Amino acid sequence: MQANKLRRTVLMSFIASLPLLSMGASVHAQDHAKLFSEKELQTAAWLRDTAKLDSSSYRILESLTTEVGPRMAGSAGDARAVAWAEAKFKELGFDKVWKEPVTFPTWTRGVETAEIISPFAQPLVITALGGSVGTAPEGLRAELIQFATLAEMIKAPADQIRGKIVFINHKMRNHTEYGSVGAGRFVGAAEAAKKGAIGLVIRSIGTDSHRMPHTGMTGYEDGVTKIPAAAMSNSDADMVSNMFKRKLPVSLKMTLGSAAGPNYTSYNVIGEITGTEKPDEHVIIGGHLDSWDLGTGAIDDGAGCAISMAAAEMIKRHGIKPKRSIRVVLFANEEQSGAGANAYFEKYKNQISKIQATSEADSGQGPVIRMASFVRPDAYAAVKQMQTVMAPLGVEAGGSDSGGGSDMGELRNLGVASFDLDLRGDDYFDLHHTPDDTFDKIEPARINQAAAAYAVFAWMAAQAPVNFSFGKEPFKKHDGDH
Amino acid sequence: MQANKLRRTVLMSFIASLPLLSMGASVHAQDHAKLFSEKELQTAAWLRDTAKLDSSSYRILESLTTEVGPRMAGSAGDARAVAWAEAKFKELGFDKVWKEPVTFPTWTRGVETAEIISPFAQPLVITALGGSVGTAPEGLRAELIQFATLAEMIKAPADQIRGKIVFINHKMRNHTEYGSVGAGRFVGAAEAAKKGAIGLVIRSIGTDSHRMPHTGMTGYEDGVTKIPAAAMSNSDADMVSNMFKRKLPVSLKMTLGSAAGPNYTSYNVIGEITGTEKPDEHVIIGGHLDSWDLGTGAIDDGAGCAISMAAAEMIKRHGIKPKRSIRVVLFANEEQSGAGANAYFEKYKNQISKIQATSEADSGQGPVIRMASFVRPDAYAAVKQMQTVMAPLGVEAGGSDSGGGSDMGELRNLGVASFDLDLRGDDYFDLHHTPDDTFDKIEPARINQAAAAYAVFAWMAAQAPVNFSFGKEPFKKHDGDH
Repeated sequence: MQANKLRRTVLMSFIASLPLLSMGASVHAQDHAKLFSEKELQTAAWLRDTAKLDSSSYRILESLTTEVGPRMAGSAGDARAVAWAEAKFKELGFDKVWKEPVTFPTWTRGVETAEIISPFAQPLVITALGGSVGTAPEGLRAELIQFATLAEMIKAPADQIRGKIVFINHKMRNHTEYGSVGAGRFVGAAEAAKKGAIGLVIRSIGTDSHRMPHTGMTGYEDGVTKIPAAAMSNSDADMVSNMFKRKLPVSLKMTLGSAAGPNYTSYNVIGEITGTEKPDEHVIIGGHLDSWDLGTGAIDDGAGCAISMAAAEMIKRHGIKPKRSIRVVLFANEEQSGAGANAYFEKYKNQISKIQATSEADSGQGPVIRMASFVRPDAYAAVKQMQTVMAPLGVEAGGSDSGGGSDMGELRNLGVASFDLDLRGDDYFDLHHTPDDTFDKIEPARINQAAAAYAVFAWMAAQAPVNFSFGKEPFKKHDGDH
Repeated sequence: MQANKLRRTVLMSFIASLPLLSMGASVHAQDHAKLFSEKELQTAAWLRDTAKLDSSSYRILESLTTEVGPRMAGSAGDARAVAWAEAKFKELGFDKVWKEPVTFPTWTRGVETAEIISPFAQPLVITALGGSVGTAPEGLRAELIQFATLAEMIKAPADQIRGKIVFINHKMRNHTEYGSVGAGRFVGAAEAAKKGAIGLVIRSIGTDSHRMPHTGMTGYEDGVTKIPAAAMSNSDADMVSNMFKRKLPVSLKMTLGSAAGPNYTSYNVIGEITGTEKPDEHVIIGGHLDSWDLGTGAIDDGAGCAISMAAAEMIKRHGIKPKRSIRVVLFANEEQSGAGANAYFEKYKNQISKIQATSEADSGQGPVIRMASFVRPDAYAAVKQMQTVMAPLGVEAGGSDSGGGSDMGELRNLGVASFDLDLRGDDYFDLHHTPDDTFDKIEPARINQAAAAYAVFAWMAAQAPVNFSFGKEPFKKHDGDH
């Protein structure tokens, strides 16, 4: 990052030093119409500098984590969170507040214990993976077979695995490995079951060295036996690794009380600041309101909810009205199924021409370090202006590769403009999906910066002199850094 | 520390630059007899440099935490630890290995859950304080009354407290505050009960910001009602603090299954390297073999056991035989009552003339940052030589204020020489008494340095040309830095 930043700074200084070239002098009147005015740029800069010193996001997150706490999809906390969100949107002065039902199957955690039986009896600290079936009440006892990675396990002959509990002991070294190391959690239970394993236990998908197991969903496959699946903390995995080094058989007992439950109806909760000129067109920002049950969901994704609520609230409070509306969507049940995002997509997929742009916040407390986009080519110039306004916050100009995120990716794939405001992730997976995801980890300067970046994004996108989305036009991936 | 170190370095350079003064030239023949020889100093320096690069302590601690793990006094792990220690002493080549029985009452933990009932329902992560009585099986429900410190609670009128659960919310900012902030744990339950409280819950006595509660003993008083006592993690305490800021009544439900149990006989386990000239005189080093049950007791006090076992083992392995014996004592049940130390004291209090010096290791993984002593005045010169040998390890020369530690303080009070080899403590209370006290926190360079310092201490004290202890002579505290 630092190298890129330096290169960009040097490049920008060089460009600023150039004399006005013919290319620069030949800007069409039409191109000017697609740029923000000087006054708009000044307003955005004022918003940026004011918002950066405003603790609105920090206060909102303190409220959510204190007054609601854990809010796993389908739990009593889920209902409390929906009530909290509606009330908070109203308290913050949003022009419109409503909720839209989302129905999904539930899952409950229950008891979760494990111990090494031999060669050395030791209790383990584990947690069930989301969606896991339970064990028999008396638990599951079997030999543990260790693999360094999911790939190693898939390569191994089934007769080595049959009747055993698979242990995928793959250490996540840094936050960029969530996709690759996380595969052991995402599909490990199904892949192990195909080889006859009777249970799965993984090293937690997390970058910390604390005795906190990381939960998160595991997936089963139709036609494949569903086996109980859990994660042990990194500290426990280190200890079990030491046992394996002794070349003695290792046996585990694991008891999980987790189970599927009946359907439940929760809600996407939505607050809107109404635009002055095109109120039915809107920019969407947001995060997911549900959390896992182990912590209070401060970074995942209370932070994203607070950042997006505060971004819109500060715009409203300061009376700097945008032309289009700003819609904050707090999605239901992202963690277990993305049911909230799916419901939103189904409801609005035929009205995408009304969506100017989206950006979701679901990677922690910030700061925002980079902004990438996915917009119509004739909006590039305006996006560059947005990036210039954000630069003093330390936000790098990113490319045209915005993917839309976990809750808004499907809209983007229909041609809705999307922006990735990348939140700093180096410590996110220390806390992610653990009991340690609590408010005391939040640093005001980080989350305030993130809310300021989102405020600038939301206001400028809503105010923009040009449509960002591809709308119903055919579109294709465009290359190059713009 | 850095300032002291700098001052000492400057002072030593200054002294080295002085011409030989008459004072220096007038050293008596008798004084020379109380100094280590040049050859002994060279041997000690060789041991220091060799031991610093030796991972014996790290390997011993890996063995204890992997093969035994938690070993709370009176538990099944206690018996496994005793068997491990005897076998390990023999494996390491100690000349004599034996154990001495220690009988004490037991305590069991059982279930431990708590939740805030109002104003906002939230589960808490708590742990029972050692020795706590349990609640009724259905739990204890009452209003929580918050105090900033134990002193504030003691000052408050009883009618504010009667029938409530006291919450001492005193944050330990750094490791020097264990005595002061820890008072809330040591005597909080008894003091709260005197005012009619029906339960105690404290903010954990620890310097971390993780969702890990810290256990540790609480004490009751004869004639005062025993009330259930627990600690919540610092993260939970921050959250509950936020609830209290709303000026609404806060109610707690807490269920503890802890209970006193029958007497149990464990053992002090002892290994000795026999001295060549005065085998019945000995230097004692050691730590305590028991741990709390939540972690694997890596830093408390597996590290102390490993450091002292390795220190003696390296001396034996390298064949540098000391004149007096080196005795490594692994004490039973330090955590709950000091029963092991008491038994040792009772057994040996009439033979203290045989004890050349003691030093116990019970403050984590090192490094050793300072060595203070408590010795006969005519041993000062030899102790200064020991400090000079240790200086290249980064060990500062301390004063004459050694207190003898938790397990050997009573011997010191009878006139046995004691040495404090101070282990770096700044991160010790991040892990102390939590599930996070595990081997993955151990850094080889730190524990190896500590074992090297203990090896130098043990060998030089055993080899010393002068008796260190006051023996049966009357003694008094002597002043000044020597």
